[in-house]
This record gives sequence, C-alpha cells and structure tokens, in this order.
Amino acid sequence: MAMGFRALPLTFLAHALAIAGAVMVLVWVLYYRGGMAWEAANKNLIFNLHPFLMLVGLIIIGGEAIMSYKSLPLKKEVKKVVHLVLHAIAIILGCVGIAAAFKNHNESNIANLYSLHSWLGITIISLYGIQWIFGFLVFFYPKGSPTLRSESLPWHVLFGIFVYILAVGNAALGFLEKLTFLESSGIAKYGPEALLVNFTAVVTVFYGAFVILSVLGQAPVEDDDSYSAI
Amino acid sequence: MAMGFRALPLTFLAHALAIAGAVMVLVWVLYYRGGMAWEAANKNLIFNLHPFLMLVGLIIIGGEAIMSYKSLPLKKEVKKVVHLVLHAIAIILGCVGIAAAFKNHNESNIANLYSLHSWLGITIISLYGIQWIFGFLVFFYPKGSPTLRSESLPWHVLFGIFVYILAVGNAALGFLEKLTFLESSGIAKYGPEALLVNFTAVVTVFYGAFVILSVLGQAPVEDDDSYSAI
Repeated sequence: MAMGFRALPLTFLAHALAIAGAVMVLVWVLYYRGGMAWEAANKNLIFNLHPFLMLVGLIIIGGEAIMSYKSLPLKKEVKKVVHLVLHAIAIILGCVGIAAAFKNHNESNIANLYSLHSWLGITIISLYGIQWIFGFLVFFYPKGSPTLRSESLPWHVLFGIFVYILAVGNAALGFLEKLTFLESSGIAKYGPEALLVNFTAVVTVFYGAFVILSVLGQAPVEDDDSYSAI
Repeated sequence: MAMGFRALPLTFLAHALAIAGAVMVLVWVLYYRGGMAWEAANKNLIFNLHPFLMLVGLIIIGGEAIMSYKSLPLKKEVKKVVHLVLHAIAIILGCVGIAAAFKNHNESNIANLYSLHSWLGITIISLYGIQWIFGFLVFFYPKGSPTLRSESLPWHVLFGIFVYILAVGNAALGFLEKLTFLESSGIAKYGPEALLVNFTAVVTVFYGAFVILSVLGQAPVEDDDSYSAI
C-alpha cells in the first residue's frame, strides 16, 4: 500500500538534492582534487573518477530510475523502459567508477578490496545487476505470467529498496574513508574541503531518503498498480 | 500492509546475528584493544566503551525493541511496554556510548564533532529521542485519540525505520572510520583485527536488514493491527 502522502512533491525535492550533490562532488574533484582522467601520471586523477561516477551514476541516476517509475505521468510500458534504461546507465557508470578505483590502486601499488567500503561495493553492484536482470526477464522480456509478475512485484520493490539503501550507505562510507585518508595526510578537519565532502555525504543520504520516501508515497495518476504491493 | 512472509523466523536469524555481533565487538575491544574503562590513564580504554555500547545498546537492543512489538505473542498493551522500555534502554546506552567518545576526545585533546560519523550520530540520537517521546505521548500516556493513533502509526513505523537504518549505516561508518585510523597507524589491512572489525560491520548491516525485514513481515498472531498500516 502507499502511505497517505503524494510522491510527486518529494521527487522535486529529490531532484534538487541530486543537482546539489552532483555540483558538490564536481567542485570537490575538479577544484580541490585536481580533476579527473582515465590515463594520467598523477594517479589521483584516475581515482577521482570513482566518487564522481558512483555518485552521479549509481546513486543519482539510480535514484532517478527508481522515482521515474513512480512519478512520471506516462503509460506503464513506457515507464518500464525509462526505469530499466536509467538503471542500466546507473549500473554501467557504476562499473566504470569501480574500475577506476581498481585502476588507481593497481597503478599506485595499493591493495585492492581490503576495506568494508570495497566489500560492500562489490556486493551491491552484483546485487544491483542481478536485480536488473531479474526485472528485465520477469517484467519486460520475455515477461513472466501475470501471476508471477504480481507475486514478484513486492519482492522486486523490497529488494530494490534494500540494494539502494546499501548503495547510499556505502557512498557515505566511501566519502568518510577518503576524507579520513586525506585528514591523516594533513588536510584540516574543519577546513572547507572537509566540510564540502561531509556535506556532500549528508546531501547524498537525504537524497536517498527522499527517493525511498517517494516509493512509499502515492503515484500522481492512478493508472496502474505499479507500486500497489507495498 | 505486511509482505507475504512470516516475521517470526526472520527474528530468530536476527537474534543469532545479534549474539554474533555482540561477541565480535567484545572480542575486538577486550582482546585486540585492551579492554574498556570509564576512568583510565590509557584513554583508548575510554573510547572502547563507544563501539561496544553503541552496537549492543542502540543497534542490538534497539533492533530487539523494534522486533519485539511485531513478533512477541503478547497482548498489545504488554508489547507496548516492552517496546518502549527496550527503546529507552537503547537510548540510554547510546547516550553513555556517545559520552564515552566525547570523554576520550576531551582527555586526549582530539577535536570533537568533525566527522560525518559524529554529525550523523548526534542527528540520529536526537531523532531517536524525539521518536521515543512522540511514541510515548501518542501511544502510551496520555495517549492520543484513536483517530490520531491510527493516523500516526504508519508515520511512527516509517520514521522509526528511517532512524534505525541511519543508525545501522552510521555504525558501519564508525567501524570503518576507526579501522582506517588503526590502519594508518600500522595494523595490517588484511590482518585478523581488520577482518574482525569489517565482519562485525557486515554482521551489523545484516542484523539491521533482518530487523527491517521482520517489520515488513506478518505478525505471528493476528491479535491486533499493530503494523497493519505498512
């Protein structure tokens, strides 16, 4: 069931937070961290692709994918395409972002996959991919029977929310991990960069909360039973 | 509405994870970090109270408080008392745990409240307290009208879930932050302590997921409409 509030106004707030978060992470990597590059002598530029692509790709575009299905005033079949294409973009950008972290580690002789952030990250992108494939097969093509679809839907929503919450939490872990490294090597704990990174994480968490809240709200037009199961 | 699965079996899994998490954090602080104390020349012993009290208090007892209302086969009025007493214990232990972190910082000349973990932590304990007071007044004493209670219930559940997810996420942030400090000062990235701390965080996240999932499941006896609103 939907909670007794409308989803649409929440999505506007979420879009505003998405823009704020994207601008903040760009200011961080471009102004404070020297820019981004896939090939560079300064290996930090390779790493910088990671926070940008994960936030803008997996979190922001992933969140827009979630909200699109609930809030767009379109026919169900069109919304399905928008939903799965946006999620596909989110996953692809997420994979490139993860590859950038590995590339940076490999070229800088830093161990891979030792931190909680990395373990959760690999788990999350795998679950995200499984969820996408499952959704594609059951709801889009070749499509399960109406019974299978209606029985799977609440699980699709629940598992999707679960993976998305993990992704948002892991983004916060990532910001904190990188900032702790930077503070260990000298940047000021209350300096402008530290505040910017921490507030980017705060904006990310709020964005995630509004995305989830919009899923629980009421769709603008009652043209289908998209989310009626939760 | 409840999802199509029973809550009770999930709560058993959650209890098992709770015990595992409590044992793991105890092994960490007692065996690897030298123990816990409120007054000590070695200020690290004061800090060690923090992860123990936050995990066992706010997260584990808080999670048991959430599950108790759904899963105990008791009368609604009794469950309410169990629910609010367990949450009160969780909040008190949480406050003592936060005080331990401040005490450690103050006595070791470390700045307070510079990290995302600390900001989210203060926000979460405040929201948790507000939620408790609101729940006490509306559902227990003096108690709102039946209309107010039934209209508030889904919001109480939703806001409670929101605060609890933030708390679990913030616990993961805390484990990662502390471990990053320890790794910066020399402990091995793949050593037994690092693995223990990371897996404690993983167990914590799984515990949180099962707590939330149990809220979405079906109550064992249909004696009331406790969670019927979501």
